[in-house]
Amino acid sequence: MKIGIVGTGNVGSTAAYSLVLQGIGSELVLVDHFPALAEAHVMDILHATPFSYPVNVHGGTFADLAGCALVIVAAGVNQQPGETRLALLQRNAEIFAGIIPPIVRAAQDAIILIATNPLDIMTQIATKLAVREGMPASRVLGTGTMLDTGRFRTLLGQRYDVAPSSVHAYVLGEHGDSEVLNWSGASVAGVPLEQFALASGQPLSAEIMQQVDQDVRRAAYKIIAGKGSTYYGIGAAIAALSRCILFDERSVFTVSSVMAEVEGVTDVALSLPHIIGRKGIEMTIFPTLSVEEHAALSQSATVIKTHLQSIQY
Amino acid sequence: MKIGIVGTGNVGSTAAYSLVLQGIGSELVLVDHFPALAEAHVMDILHATPFSYPVNVHGGTFADLAGCALVIVAAGVNQQPGETRLALLQRNAEIFAGIIPPIVRAAQDAIILIATNPLDIMTQIATKLAVREGMPASRVLGTGTMLDTGRFRTLLGQRYDVAPSSVHAYVLGEHGDSEVLNWSGASVAGVPLEQFALASGQPLSAEIMQQVDQDVRRAAYKIIAGKGSTYYGIGAAIAALSRCILFDERSVFTVSSVMAEVEGVTDVALSLPHIIGRKGIEMTIFPTLSVEEHAALSQSATVIKTHLQSIQY
Amino acid sequence: MKIGIVGTGNVGSTAAYSLVLQGIGSELVLVDHFPALAEAHVMDILHATPFSYPVNVHGGTFADLAGCALVIVAAGVNQQPGETRLALLQRNAEIFAGIIPPIVRAAQDAIILIATNPLDIMTQIATKLAVREGMPASRVLGTGTMLDTGRFRTLLGQRYDVAPSSVHAYVLGEHGDSEVLNWSGASVAGVPLEQFALASGQPLSAEIMQQVDQDVRRAAYKIIAGKGSTYYGIGAAIAALSRCILFDERSVFTVSSVMAEVEGVTDVALSLPHIIGRKGIEMTIFPTLSVEEHAALSQSATVIKTHLQSIQY
Amino acid sequence: MKIGIVGTGNVGSTAAYSLVLQGIGSELVLVDHFPALAEAHVMDILHATPFSYPVNVHGGTFADLAGCALVIVAAGVNQQPGETRLALLQRNAEIFAGIIPPIVRAAQDAIILIATNPLDIMTQIATKLAVREGMPASRVLGTGTMLDTGRFRTLLGQRYDVAPSSVHAYVLGEHGDSEVLNWSGASVAGVPLEQFALASGQPLSAEIMQQVDQDVRRAAYKIIAGKGSTYYGIGAAIAALSRCILFDERSVFTVSSVMAEVEGVTDVALSLPHIIGRKGIEMTIFPTLSVEEHAALSQSATVIKTHLQSIQY
Ligand SMILES: NC(=O)c1ccc[n+]([C@@H]2O[C@H](COP(=O)([O-])OP(=O)(O)OC[C@H]3O[C@@H](n4cnc5c(N)ncnc54)[C@H](O)[C@@H]3O)[C@@H](O)[C@H]2O)c1
Ligand SMILES: NC(=O)c1ccc[n+]([C@@H]2O[C@H](COP(=O)([O-])OP(=O)(O)OC[C@H]3O[C@@H](n4cnc5c(N)ncnc54)[C@H](O)[C@@H]3O)[C@@H](O)[C@H]2O)c1
Ligand SMILES: NC(=O)c1ccc[n+]([C@@H]2O[C@H](COP(=O)([O-])OP(=O)(O)OC[C@H]3O[C@@H](n4cnc5c(N)ncnc54)[C@H](O)[C@@H]3O)[C@@H](O)[C@H]2O)c1
Ligand SMILES: NC(=O)c1ccc[n+]([C@@H]2O[C@H](COP(=O)([O-])OP(=O)(O)OC[C@H]3O[C@@H](n4cnc5c(N)ncnc54)[C@H](O)[C@@H]3O)[C@@H](O)[C@H]2O)c1
Repeated sequence: MKIGIVGTGNVGSTAAYSLVLQGIGSELVLVDHFPALAEAHVMDILHATPFSYPVNVHGGTFADLAGCALVIVAAGVNQQPGETRLALLQRNAEIFAGIIPPIVRAAQDAIILIATNPLDIMTQIATKLAVREGMPASRVLGTGTMLDTGRFRTLLGQRYDVAPSSVHAYVLGEHGDSEVLNWSGASVAGVPLEQFALASGQPLSAEIMQQVDQDVRRAAYKIIAGKGSTYYGIGAAIAALSRCILFDERSVFTVSSVMAEVEGVTDVALSLPHIIGRKGIEMTIFPTLSVEEHAALSQSATVIKTHLQSIQY
Repeated sequence: MKIGIVGTGNVGSTAAYSLVLQGIGSELVLVDHFPALAEAHVMDILHATPFSYPVNVHGGTFADLAGCALVIVAAGVNQQPGETRLALLQRNAEIFAGIIPPIVRAAQDAIILIATNPLDIMTQIATKLAVREGMPASRVLGTGTMLDTGRFRTLLGQRYDVAPSSVHAYVLGEHGDSEVLNWSGASVAGVPLEQFALASGQPLSAEIMQQVDQDVRRAAYKIIAGKGSTYYGIGAAIAALSRCILFDERSVFTVSSVMAEVEGVTDVALSLPHIIGRKGIEMTIFPTLSVEEHAALSQSATVIKTHLQSIQY
Repeated sequence: MKIGIVGTGNVGSTAAYSLVLQGIGSELVLVDHFPALAEAHVMDILHATPFSYPVNVHGGTFADLAGCALVIVAAGVNQQPGETRLALLQRNAEIFAGIIPPIVRAAQDAIILIATNPLDIMTQIATKLAVREGMPASRVLGTGTMLDTGRFRTLLGQRYDVAPSSVHAYVLGEHGDSEVLNWSGASVAGVPLEQFALASGQPLSAEIMQQVDQDVRRAAYKIIAGKGSTYYGIGAAIAALSRCILFDERSVFTVSSVMAEVEGVTDVALSLPHIIGRKGIEMTIFPTLSVEEHAALSQSATVIKTHLQSIQY
Repeated sequence: MKIGIVGTGNVGSTAAYSLVLQGIGSELVLVDHFPALAEAHVMDILHATPFSYPVNVHGGTFADLAGCALVIVAAGVNQQPGETRLALLQRNAEIFAGIIPPIVRAAQDAIILIATNPLDIMTQIATKLAVREGMPASRVLGTGTMLDTGRFRTLLGQRYDVAPSSVHAYVLGEHGDSEVLNWSGASVAGVPLEQFALASGQPLSAEIMQQVDQDVRRAAYKIIAGKGSTYYGIGAAIAALSRCILFDERSVFTVSSVMAEVEGVTDVALSLPHIIGRKGIEMTIFPTLSVEEHAALSQSATVIKTHLQSIQY
């Protein structure tokens, strides 16, 4: 169970650390444009192994990804305070043109997991590049709205004093400003959220919904304002997804993948609930949406598609 | 974080083992009518500590439960092949009259978790006895249909090739023959099970439902026929619930507790989804039921109540 | 990461349960002479998956072991109260003649891990049978004195109030009556045990040593007297060893393997510290022994060899 | 099990993240001079809870530390590239005068764990300040050479292809340039390292020793040169130590604490192996040293003492 990480900034290195702390994988290869940075992370993470699991962590080049069951891609430029995710696009597209082909050539049987923003566009670019090298599209996926979904569940959990794992609610569409909170499908313990909220003495007012919506949608911006970038949430999300893939767990995550058609928009990568396993995307689950959510998802798909077209993808 | 286990047959000892393997709790006290049996389990479980967590496991008497945050009760007589759970009632009621008062007196701040069958009746008896000693009723709960719920989710997961953790479905009412599978509230990834089943190419036929129903309802009988008794599933369930209580996780579990009224039946212990935390039962969630499920739950409550009345509780 | 378990009595099923609780492996195949027993364990263990990891547990035949990275063998007859481990020999040798060849044929790249008693003899028999099928001897090992070593460390830890993981002490030779406690090499935190004991105010008297020696040597007998057989300690040991093998952790364990020569005795399986990894036995570490320990190890090797010869192996 | 973290820069926040990923503790309070920074970390770490454990993480002031069983202190100024650890001293001493008293007053029953550099001096300062508030000295400790010990074991493990957990070797004295690698006590599987190295075909040459010595001693400098500061290793070390304290595990760690006398130097904080438990330092283990190591430890103690005296402590 060899895992590669390409791009070892805050996100890539935190993902590596999370994998080691939880003992997922037996070998980790860290690859970065600046090998000295990757090596510094390797050393720091290795010092965590006596206190966790003896994972074999080392630096390397693309060739060292041979035999990886999974390659995590977090190379790119980080979102600056105030910058929109889409503004990063052009630079990152060029980076991907340089790294995806050698990754696929070195690790032909791997799943490719994209974390770089703008997430959906980078996932679509990675998929195109990977397919061109002969890899099936179902083996490329992006972390998508996994983190936003996690935020949504955590915020509802805090407000209603229940564990996030007992709250079921998804964020769909773009990992970005146009994302769609699937309120109509939210539930706690099988009970529609609205009904649960009522029973718990704190009815789901428009005010609460707007507050939560803003807190989910603006979370990354807030964290970036406070500490420069986000990495803990996404690191844990990547580790959970890695375990799901490597151990073929078939859990449902709202990851991003290229869909033939969503809400009338064709050939577009965005997040929907998918069953994930050893082969990547195993099945897509189309959630039940309210009229407004359908419209919002259509809008979100269009936003992504427009950006893709603006760079000829 | 001291945990007591009273009754160290297969269920109690497997629970202890599960707690040690997962590093839940720092001290475990095993109490049994046959101290030599408890001591043999203590030795065997201690031999697992070099390979897991250095939990302080030892045998003891009721007095040694002082300071426990949680006391698990699995004392009783095990279900014999073919025997109904209710047939065990009388003997176990007597055992509880002898053990619950000294447990509560020794461990006044503990949560009391009942695993002994017939589960709901034993939970109600334990609650009565504990309340008599001055403990709030919300601090006594039974494992209830936690295991049945787990079975339900596992079977649906197997059939539809998705992780049980991504399947949401509850079993309610009696932990026994009259239990109610809440099909109408079952979902995968927020999508009603029926719709998910259709999308996955294997529609939810009456035949599949009946098969699953039988497999859930008859699981314990089948396992008992094959190996004498059941203990692995319940051991893991007890460990998960213990962690939830000790770490105040506030997850939702279908445990049994005494309800003021359910479907018109008053003062009866049965399983519904509850939020569980450091104080025991924190909130009850009344699920949405179909007409048939309402009737079945009413029937289940009546079955339990009748048995309770037959022994003047 | 597929793991097979052949022989699903108490030891095999507890090992399976331990693997699931700790999320080691993604697929578990249980094989037993009585398929109904294996199936009952499969059901019971599956009911633990919603509370731990979604491991794919199922029953099967030898053919279903194809693709296993590890096959654990716990088939055999259990030690009865009072019975010596060697008395079980003849029956178990026959069982192995029937199961090892089909295991090796089905799972050619697996490591074979033996738990059946008398452990060293069964390991040697298994090695011979496996080598005959073309498997390298280094891929067959027995749990050996892993458990005895764990007992030794636990008992010293309890006596001196320190975690067993901080006590270093090995039991060598036969997993049985002639085993050798390597007192001369025992240490706590790098300090010889004798010196540590002195500093802790409880010098290492002959009395203490004899007590610990008896407690280690007689532990299995005591547990068997109290509850019929031992399985928790060995289950956790097997799980730890499985993780070490599957994740190529290269930890040191006192497992049993066929040695070319030990203390003048040739071609004999017994326990010494070995570095264990993905290829099985990676390196043997010959410990420093006192004169008495050399003699005792020689004696232990002779005991095993004599038994082997008595059955023409 | 409430844990406080004061100082939420890279080290404090990584420690918090590690605790959440491993489910250690049920409540985490983050306190920083810049509350907005602590809040940004709280948000980011909370987003990891749906993928790990539902720990209650929140920001706060000193008053919010009430009820903590453990308070981790990582407030201070980080080591700059090229800067010696001792150069940071004066600024950090002032910070501690401002934070230790309110911590002790709010969390009277807590263990205080110091991570701030220069580690030993800060531990001694913290101890003085805590004792002045009525706390026993044994309840204040510093991470000391825990990390250096981990590095030493990891490097030896890599070189000899064995898990770090099977290598036993300590770094003693100052967490800094004068630290002492206890080569004479190093062992693998109970066998002296020198002998093991010989057997493994790679004898322990002066060259290898010097290389390892430099790699241990210069590790922090190298990592700081590559990525600005170190935090993964120390984060995992803090988490392991936290678990040991909260669960009263009584493991041995080379943490720093004020010793009445070491090698003739009185009243000085430095690292030696200690048994750690719920009450903090439970016992000190004086390792066996070579003549050179005695001299080096004496020298190391003198270095620390001199610095302490230079600031009148
Ligand atoms: N998916 C999410 O939910 C999520 C969350 C947080 C961050 N992100 C995104 O993750 C990405 C990484 O974030 P970060 O904070 O780690 O940024 P960072 O700037 O710290 O790290 C990016 C790393 O990529 C490396 N890199 C650049 N070009 C490369 C190339 N051609 N080959 C190899 N490595 C190369 C850089 O050297 C740098 O180390 C960003 O795009 C960020 O927006 C995504
Ligand atoms: N809740 C569930 O989902 C579930 C699942 C499996 C089993 N169970 C029930 O759990 C109970 C235990 O099952 P088991 O298989 O461990 O049975 P068991 O017979 O192996 O163990 C019961 C133990 O209780 C002890 N005991 C009896 N009276 C006692 C007393 N007065 N004080 C202390 N100890 C006493 C016995 O000595 C025995 O060791 C049974 O009632 C069984 O039906 C419940
Ligand atoms: N290594 C150790 O430290 C250690 C510790 C405890 C027990 N043991 C040994 O482990 C073995 C198993 O112990 P147990 O308590 O599980 O015994 P058990 O009797 O409960 O189980 C043995 C199982 O092997 C099965 N079996 C027998 N022949 C078979 C065949 N040909 N093919 C497949 N399965 C077959 C039986 O049906 C039975 O289910 C015993 O030899 C015991 O002495 C070793
Ligand atoms: N013990 C070890 O092995 C080890 C390893 C790495 C780092 N460190 C040390 O840990 C310390 C922290 O390192 P870092 O990288 O996190 O530094 P950092 O600069 O990122 O964080 C220090 C934090 O302390 C806060 N702080 C300062 N004064 C405070 C006050 N009065 N009250 C509350 N918070 C205050 C700052 O606001 C800042 O957030 C440094 O001293 C560093 O040298 C020790």
